[in-house]
Amino acid sequence: MKKLFFYIVLLLVSFQSEAQKASWIAYPGEFEIWTHRKQMMGRTERGENYPSLWRVDSPYSIVEFVKPVSLSKPERASMKVDGVYFISGKNGIMNSFNPNGFILPAGDYNITVKVENFKELPSLFFQAESFCSDSTWIVNSLNGDYVGAEQLNFNDPDVMPSEFKLAVKDIKAISNENVNGGVLYDFGRETYAYPVLENKDIKDSLFVCYGESREEALAMREAETFDVIYAGDFKEQTLPAKAFRYIFVKAKDGNLLSDVRALYEYLPLQRKGKFECSDTLINHIYDVSYYTLELNTRYCHLDGIKRDRWVWSGDAYQSYLMNFYTFFDEDVNKRTLWGLRGHAPITKHINTILDYSFYWMLGVYEHYFYTGDATFLKNIYPRLVETMDFCISRLNKNNIAEGMPGDWVFVDWAPIEKDGELSFEQLLFLHSLKNIYKSALATGDKQGVEKYKAMLDKLTPEFENIFWSDEKNAYLHRRKNGVVSPEVTRYTNMFSILFNYADENKKEIIKNSVILNDSILKITTPYMKFYELAALCEIGEQKEVVEFVKNYWGGMLKLGATSMWEAFDPTLPDDKHYEMYGRPFGKSLCHAWGANPVYLFGKYYLGVKPTNVAYSEYEIRPNLGGLKWIKGEVPTKNGNIGVEVNKNKIVVSTPDLNNGTLYFNSKTTPKCKNAKIEKVSNNEYMIKLASPNTIYEVRYN
Amino acid sequence: MKKLFFYIVLLLVSFQSEAQKASWIAYPGEFEIWTHRKQMMGRTERGENYPSLWRVDSPYSIVEFVKPVSLSKPERASMKVDGVYFISGKNGIMNSFNPNGFILPAGDYNITVKVENFKELPSLFFQAESFCSDSTWIVNSLNGDYVGAEQLNFNDPDVMPSEFKLAVKDIKAISNENVNGGVLYDFGRETYAYPVLENKDIKDSLFVCYGESREEALAMREAETFDVIYAGDFKEQTLPAKAFRYIFVKAKDGNLLSDVRALYEYLPLQRKGKFECSDTLINHIYDVSYYTLELNTRYCHLDGIKRDRWVWSGDAYQSYLMNFYTFFDEDVNKRTLWGLRGHAPITKHINTILDYSFYWMLGVYEHYFYTGDATFLKNIYPRLVETMDFCISRLNKNNIAEGMPGDWVFVDWAPIEKDGELSFEQLLFLHSLKNIYKSALATGDKQGVEKYKAMLDKLTPEFENIFWSDEKNAYLHRRKNGVVSPEVTRYTNMFSILFNYADENKKEIIKNSVILNDSILKITTPYMKFYELAALCEIGEQKEVVEFVKNYWGGMLKLGATSMWEAFDPTLPDDKHYEMYGRPFGKSLCHAWGANPVYLFGKYYLGVKPTNVAYSEYEIRPNLGGLKWIKGEVPTKNGNIGVEVNKNKIVVSTPDLNNGTLYFNSKTTPKCKNAKIEKVSNNEYMIKLASPNTIYEVRYN
Repeated sequence: MKKLFFYIVLLLVSFQSEAQKASWIAYPGEFEIWTHRKQMMGRTERGENYPSLWRVDSPYSIVEFVKPVSLSKPERASMKVDGVYFISGKNGIMNSFNPNGFILPAGDYNITVKVENFKELPSLFFQAESFCSDSTWIVNSLNGDYVGAEQLNFNDPDVMPSEFKLAVKDIKAISNENVNGGVLYDFGRETYAYPVLENKDIKDSLFVCYGESREEALAMREAETFDVIYAGDFKEQTLPAKAFRYIFVKAKDGNLLSDVRALYEYLPLQRKGKFECSDTLINHIYDVSYYTLELNTRYCHLDGIKRDRWVWSGDAYQSYLMNFYTFFDEDVNKRTLWGLRGHAPITKHINTILDYSFYWMLGVYEHYFYTGDATFLKNIYPRLVETMDFCISRLNKNNIAEGMPGDWVFVDWAPIEKDGELSFEQLLFLHSLKNIYKSALATGDKQGVEKYKAMLDKLTPEFENIFWSDEKNAYLHRRKNGVVSPEVTRYTNMFSILFNYADENKKEIIKNSVILNDSILKITTPYMKFYELAALCEIGEQKEVVEFVKNYWGGMLKLGATSMWEAFDPTLPDDKHYEMYGRPFGKSLCHAWGANPVYLFGKYYLGVKPTNVAYSEYEIRPNLGGLKWIKGEVPTKNGNIGVEVNKNKIVVSTPDLNNGTLYFNSKTTPKCKNAKIEKVSNNEYMIKLASPNTIYEVRYN
Repeated sequence: MKKLFFYIVLLLVSFQSEAQKASWIAYPGEFEIWTHRKQMMGRTERGENYPSLWRVDSPYSIVEFVKPVSLSKPERASMKVDGVYFISGKNGIMNSFNPNGFILPAGDYNITVKVENFKELPSLFFQAESFCSDSTWIVNSLNGDYVGAEQLNFNDPDVMPSEFKLAVKDIKAISNENVNGGVLYDFGRETYAYPVLENKDIKDSLFVCYGESREEALAMREAETFDVIYAGDFKEQTLPAKAFRYIFVKAKDGNLLSDVRALYEYLPLQRKGKFECSDTLINHIYDVSYYTLELNTRYCHLDGIKRDRWVWSGDAYQSYLMNFYTFFDEDVNKRTLWGLRGHAPITKHINTILDYSFYWMLGVYEHYFYTGDATFLKNIYPRLVETMDFCISRLNKNNIAEGMPGDWVFVDWAPIEKDGELSFEQLLFLHSLKNIYKSALATGDKQGVEKYKAMLDKLTPEFENIFWSDEKNAYLHRRKNGVVSPEVTRYTNMFSILFNYADENKKEIIKNSVILNDSILKITTPYMKFYELAALCEIGEQKEVVEFVKNYWGGMLKLGATSMWEAFDPTLPDDKHYEMYGRPFGKSLCHAWGANPVYLFGKYYLGVKPTNVAYSEYEIRPNLGGLKWIKGEVPTKNGNIGVEVNKNKIVVSTPDLNNGTLYFNSKTTPKCKNAKIEKVSNNEYMIKLASPNTIYEVRYN
């Protein structure tokens, strides 16, 4: 007995000292698909469950993990498995072993762990002395594929990936008020939480109504979310999580609860991106936008926290971009991208929306471009190809991405024509082609490179021929039955600037004929404002954008917003702001796309953006936009880029990267102690930011 | 209050009187796919779990049930749903209704019930006054399809389809014996049951070993199935179900159990097909075969009950056919066919085996042909097309179904060449083409009809050219690298007779050069014996087959078999019969394909088979095969066909069908009171069996 004990201690010692750190592993994208499903399962609306409008995939149920080993001596190993499994090794299936500790024989052979889990996520944690579960394992979904396993951010053998859940913390109402025979609790600002009711006196049923606004909470059955609790006589009850600022509680017997608290549910995120300036209203807008984005950044990127809590590709695309200028949380992007795509076969557009398949493809490349995650791109590339194949298979006879029966052509919530050939959809399609072409280059898919290049070369000039109007000085909105109608909308025109389809000459033309032309139908959703404001910044209208942001987002704050809204029309009377979709409180008052100032200020005022993958090359083009001073930080995988600007000084601090360039204008000859300043043109100067982790201070005017 | 009560009573009265009978409904094939998954989840082998080798699909998770209604007055309705759901009607989503009773407004509108269930099966039971859930509802899997709902054989609102499970009943051991320090319980014959252990004295761990043979039960860890129970000190314990005749129990502390009982688990089946004859050994063989098939007919058709308990398409194909001559249980065929196929995308052959994709396609048509279930054919036809497309996409450059990388080319457990172009695989492919062509005709797929006809017309003569050898008087086994090797095997030749590819002349040639030629490699599995014996019967060798059956199956019975085996080689020494796959008890002693006499005697001795869909035309060609008398029944959807034959008399009783034909030979002029006898040729006569439910008695010689 003593001897055995000694032996075990020895084993454990060597085990501890030599072992690498194991992670849970899964088939690539499956943890993300599982998480997305978890997100998609929870919708309730006015007391009813509400299953998704589109297909939601579950993870592959049976997965085989394989690790070729070459062991010079027997090794002790242990493992944890989420599912039913067998393990086979040198001598076939390893019978009746103890997963907490078993011996692998010496030799060259494959270790295979086959895992079945029809309800959650097949995953594996494996720890031997000289190796462990990590991305060197290969994995197979029984579809004939062997790919590298995905190493998840789960390193504790006792916590399975399928136990992943958001964090919670207690929050309290800041005030309460007796009204309409019940009590209205005010939590001070928009939140997302599990309400906790404490009871002593109520014996009968209870109506609990949630409001993003005071009005909604008091609207009872007209509110978007409420609970009716039939069982009285409870001490404490925690209800399903909801979005609210206000909770109104009214008991049938007229008695009151002793207290209403809540458990705030959140994804722990780090606020890496920062922005501050001389204008306090802008700072307030930036803060509320940040909080809005934070609330909507959960298992996946949500459109809004109140209503459907589903994952929408078009909305998510903006969240990926905002994420790069705030949390730089790669995992939530990946969960969203994998989840939105799911598995083959592709039978419908993502979210059933034509444009949303394109945004998904753009999102994949943006994620790669900002993070440089080549493993992600490689793993998801086959689904990118499947998605593009699906889109190509549905082009009309003119090779134009027109809505087919069953497709939802969204573009924007706006009174515009949506049938026929829309230049907007075709431009998104062309840009998706360009992005998959770049993805094909990055992953080494030579056939893909040729195929997509050929399509681009053919379709790009065709697009110009069909939709550009010299008469209107703009891209036209659509062609139907072979006839291009003279209608101009902002969409295609602003995207042609953002995506660089218009040349510099056309950009200038479009700026005047469309972007700054008040007779063209105005954008009223923050969704499309995102792109319009970005396009304005691209053409140097930062000053105008600052004014717009102050008026528009400032307008919401004036109405008491504690998070940014789904839509805002400043011309509406004060009591009409909550209506949408024909419902009095249909509008989401906490909508991710409302948060876009966090992106604008980072990208177009601090002026930071990557010009090559993962900031391996990047540029900084600060722009005060009429503000006295601005300062802030933009996150990269290699640390933050700091920018501080006033009228006389630009201070830049570089991350652990050596290939940045600072561009700025100066009327006088600028100075910088630790860098050479090059003149680009008349007033424009350039500094190569070649030293990592360095502060460059530039005096200019 | 009184008034309300009165109103409810009135409603309930009308509800009871007018209502049709509701069934649970689901998306077509999904209940079957769910059941198949349930079947595939249970494998354990020598104490270990054993996930499937191939992909096993789960039902679609979100399904939308739609019923257009036109209600002249409000109706009371109730429903049960397996999953999370909402219901919408005339005024959108019906909020906070009570599923046990709600009112549908009058009017013309769609009722939509959207059901989400990520773990089991989304299904619906709906009962209104004038309509209910049935096959008139349409259903959508969110893949863009709307198809007719499948009306399941579940009519009790309180029993959801996902609660479907097999029946159980108590069985007892017939004897027990103290041996090897434990006790061996003998249950008298092969069974499939949950062992129930009763305990008083045992305090330590317990080894429970199962044997289809006495030897296996005593082999401990060399047996295919065993349980090690670590917790002692229990009163009663029910263990997972297993296949066994013997259970050996040995406790570490040497104590004994008070009893070992078992719960026999079974699919309730009706023995509709019957056969009896003058030979008691044949009768014994028929009975044991029937029991063997019964044990393997479960959630799906199994290959064998001991080992993997998975669903194998090639094995199942024989079970469908046997089923038509025994239980005529349509549901188990459908569960097997849908389950084996699962959902798109098709990435591998069924069970990963090339031949098994073909057997699956053949099985679909056989099921339709015997049952006439046009709804089934229509629903599954798109998957038939997908499967054929997959097979066509993997033809080699000569349009031959050759095994591609990742395919398992099975044919038979036999020492034959399996790489290159096998005539056997190509013949199965051609016959699958012919069957999908007939399915296309039956479902009205005109494009399919043309496509498959064109392929058949091209490939059938090519097949003859490549593989028929005038020199060998046989179809050759294979071509490799463009060279046809002279090797002849039985497979292609016997299938060419069964499938009618060989003309009458070639059949006669093949009979002598291959089938009755002892120098051609012999078949040793009952699997291929099935086809060989059927082919022999097709060419009139019933006598020889009777002798073979008596020797071969009789040989198993002589060795004490209580069910038919996976393989049997009469030349092996008595103690070598249980070995297979390199394991001492690897062989299954209860294998569905071992049951084939139940098919042979019904089809080729009673001589009953449909010649048009669902016996709308059928023929009876009785054949005594050297026996003094035979009698029995063959089930159809319209009742049983009875046949009784001796040397002087044939008695036939018709089911509720009017288009049968009896063929028989007679040396003298035959007589029949109630039918006209027509002479076909020399000694052959024919009687039209035009009267349903009628007995025809024929005197002949």
